[in-house]
Amino acid sequence: MSEPLRVLVWNENVHERNGEPAGMAEYYPDGIHGAVADALRRHLPDAEVSTATQEQPEHGLGGDVLDRTDVLLWWGHIAHEGVDDAVVERVQQHVLGGMGLLVLHSGHFSKIFRRLLGTTCSLAWRNDGEQELVWTVKPSHPIAEGVPSPLVIPRQEMYGELFDIPDPDDLVFISSFAGGEVFRSGVTFTRGRGRIFYFSPGDQEYPVYLQAEVQQVLANGVRWAAQPGLARSVPEVSNPPRTWLT
Amino acid sequence: MSEPLRVLVWNENVHERNGEPAGMAEYYPDGIHGAVADALRRHLPDAEVSTATQEQPEHGLGGDVLDRTDVLLWWGHIAHEGVDDAVVERVQQHVLGGMGLLVLHSGHFSKIFRRLLGTTCSLAWRNDGEQELVWTVKPSHPIAEGVPSPLVIPRQEMYGELFDIPDPDDLVFISSFAGGEVFRSGVTFTRGRGRIFYFSPGDQEYPVYLQAEVQQVLANGVRWAAQPGLARSVPEVSNPPRTWLT
Amino acid sequence: MSEPLRVLVWNENVHERNGEPAGMAEYYPDGIHGAVADALRRHLPDAEVSTATQEQPEHGLGGDVLDRTDVLLWWGHIAHEGVDDAVVERVQQHVLGGMGLLVLHSGHFSKIFRRLLGTTCSLAWRNDGEQELVWTVKPSHPIAEGVPSPLVIPRQEMYGELFDIPDPDDLVFISSFAGGEVFRSGVTFTRGRGRIFYFSPGDQEYPVYLQAEVQQVLANGVRWAAQPGLARSVPEVSNPPRTWLT
Amino acid sequence: MSEPLRVLVWNENVHERNGEPAGMAEYYPDGIHGAVADALRRHLPDAEVSTATQEQPEHGLGGDVLDRTDVLLWWGHIAHEGVDDAVVERVQQHVLGGMGLLVLHSGHFSKIFRRLLGTTCSLAWRNDGEQELVWTVKPSHPIAEGVPSPLVIPRQEMYGELFDIPDPDDLVFISSFAGGEVFRSGVTFTRGRGRIFYFSPGDQEYPVYLQAEVQQVLANGVRWAAQPGLARSVPEVSNPPRTWLT
Repeated sequence: MSEPLRVLVWNENVHERNGEPAGMAEYYPDGIHGAVADALRRHLPDAEVSTATQEQPEHGLGGDVLDRTDVLLWWGHIAHEGVDDAVVERVQQHVLGGMGLLVLHSGHFSKIFRRLLGTTCSLAWRNDGEQELVWTVKPSHPIAEGVPSPLVIPRQEMYGELFDIPDPDDLVFISSFAGGEVFRSGVTFTRGRGRIFYFSPGDQEYPVYLQAEVQQVLANGVRWAAQPGLARSVPEVSNPPRTWLT
Repeated sequence: MSEPLRVLVWNENVHERNGEPAGMAEYYPDGIHGAVADALRRHLPDAEVSTATQEQPEHGLGGDVLDRTDVLLWWGHIAHEGVDDAVVERVQQHVLGGMGLLVLHSGHFSKIFRRLLGTTCSLAWRNDGEQELVWTVKPSHPIAEGVPSPLVIPRQEMYGELFDIPDPDDLVFISSFAGGEVFRSGVTFTRGRGRIFYFSPGDQEYPVYLQAEVQQVLANGVRWAAQPGLARSVPEVSNPPRTWLT
Repeated sequence: MSEPLRVLVWNENVHERNGEPAGMAEYYPDGIHGAVADALRRHLPDAEVSTATQEQPEHGLGGDVLDRTDVLLWWGHIAHEGVDDAVVERVQQHVLGGMGLLVLHSGHFSKIFRRLLGTTCSLAWRNDGEQELVWTVKPSHPIAEGVPSPLVIPRQEMYGELFDIPDPDDLVFISSFAGGEVFRSGVTFTRGRGRIFYFSPGDQEYPVYLQAEVQQVLANGVRWAAQPGLARSVPEVSNPPRTWLT
Repeated sequence: MSEPLRVLVWNENVHERNGEPAGMAEYYPDGIHGAVADALRRHLPDAEVSTATQEQPEHGLGGDVLDRTDVLLWWGHIAHEGVDDAVVERVQQHVLGGMGLLVLHSGHFSKIFRRLLGTTCSLAWRNDGEQELVWTVKPSHPIAEGVPSPLVIPRQEMYGELFDIPDPDDLVFISSFAGGEVFRSGVTFTRGRGRIFYFSPGDQEYPVYLQAEVQQVLANGVRWAAQPGLARSVPEVSNPPRTWLT
């Protein structure tokens, strides 16, 4: 594994381009993708981290780009429907073939997440700037390494159950909110040969991605999801002859 | 729960209409759907069992039909692509809302199964009339009740790993084949409020559904997947006020 | 299954005999076991519900008693160490052989629970009369049927993560507390042929078992864990000859 | 992680000392522990690999030894009952505190494995020198990396279902045998903070541990189970004050 890890941070980049919420330009001057990429560069000095946004041709997610991506991070919120189905299909194929995928916060409603999971991915939400406490419930998981429990987020949008997802492979974090709701905020899945991590903290209104502990979770997630030595190949049907037992 | 259980057996009915394989008309004179429905009527005397086929209007799966269905069984093989996307969408919504779904054998490649699971659902196969042994690995599961281990199927198409599915909620059966392959042949999933059971034995060339033990598995699967008392409702996004803690 | 379900509610019965906490005699005049048994009789009119307590010979858990028990409920708190190891061994064998087991509240530290799970079963706790909200996260599970989400418990001891248990088969409920902690409050396991359900609400200081919704959960748990038609047999080693393939 | 990984291969060493089976001294001249340690040294050049055997004081598993062990491998067969309970208790505490554990082949009946899992760990077996095929069913798992599917073991003891274990966290490998049986041959668990991997191939009568692919699995397992940066601490009960929400 002497090759550098190749990480791509994708953002719809619509809040940023619209300049709303107004405060966003202060805490995320380079956009959410810029902040996340910057954090990953610091936490994963052996990685090559780049960014892509929805307004680019093919949303910045051409086949050659994905071929060179070990782990893709996905942030979207108000422009999910504007993502081209052909690009979604392409990303899905790469995940099934072994590319890692981290889906962040409101990305729960992205086409790619819903397509990979098969459920509505709906949830309860309330934007009231509540304290969120992120509790580790599987301390042996690589994504929990070095993360305090609870991880305290002073102000955040509430995401609450019922979170309509399939049973995850691993439940790493459960959050509570000041209003009393709970949420499975850190969950892993595998689909095909690919590893998927969903992490709910992070929003356009609160500078959550500037917290070192949140950055640690994302960096851990990238390391966990990456399979740099794997030749990407989607599982295929085969019709083998009898050869094993005679 | 004094209401009878309402079960619908769906078949693409293409092998039957084409008259091939030729022997099929002998062991399945009323089609695969007819044989399965007949078996369920005997094993579940408290159920109302009906059938539907692909050539019917809306494939026999109109909204009013699904509203009256507690558990849907799905058999398809060579006509998956002919299933209308709008019907697939409708069935998915009913599953997410709480309808039980049993997917049988080559239904692994049906649109509805792939859409609910998010993977390719590909596998290895070989049609060589091999003996299949179905071993119970979770004896406490309701679907395993009264099923011998192994359940011996004298001649059957081989389905082998890698079966590209998400980790199931429960792995109930693992099969081996005379050629040495293995297959996760009985697996459960939940998606939304719905319970899903996939069972691989059963084919157009071998009269597998006439075996009493296989019928027992299907009847167990129907009982397990049914939620007759549940008001069907797909999980939805909500935006609740703070009310629990003050 | 015309036979009545046979349910046994076990309690260490030490708080009751000691008369502390003082208020307990008011809300639980027949002890916790009496209250739980009474609730189950009303919710499961087809069941035969009896009770046993620790001060009885063999703790009321002789082999003949367990032979006649489909589901055992276990409540203990301050006398875990006083439970005889031979009785624990016997109960474990019955669970592995197919008897259902519901472990309640402070029973998380019982010998039988720790022995079946292999972990410390430790947790965080605080007795401050806090509101507990029990959220359903797997609505398709039989134990969640008819249970509101959240189920509100006005005053309760706090149990918080890290709850040191193995990954459960199914995570049905997650609780939050007014102090901000979360807890996996409703979890299922299988061990051998037996089904196990742990449910954390319920304490000697708060009349939680008098709440109809809590009673509904317990009744659902009993129905789910029961396998009345199963001949009890612990999985055993076997040394079969080659007979399947020739 | 500049510190070398510290791996300890433990063997009851009874077959070796008794000189039976006779051929064992040829393929395992340094014992099973010697062969496994040698293989790990080659596959994990960054690791410090040592061995310990049952006849040593404290079975070679003193507290100071375990303190310096990141991953322990366990091979035992005919002397399980001779392992001191105090040592078993000590190993369990280290696993719960974060030490990795690989249990090999007949170690399924070891005291430590049964204590950590809570079940009988019984299975079917037949010593008939049958071909075993080890199929990967979770290709995204780190333990499957670089392992062919199937991994072919020409002659091996048969281990078959029902394998009485709890549902594993991850099912990585399923084996079939020439006689038709199947076995969950590669399974992971977590208990406390520790990661556990059970791998069934390997026996005193067949030189299975000399196969490069089997060695690859063990090396992958060691890497996966290791948490070298973790301060070892068994989860404990705590009684925190209200501090998070006020």
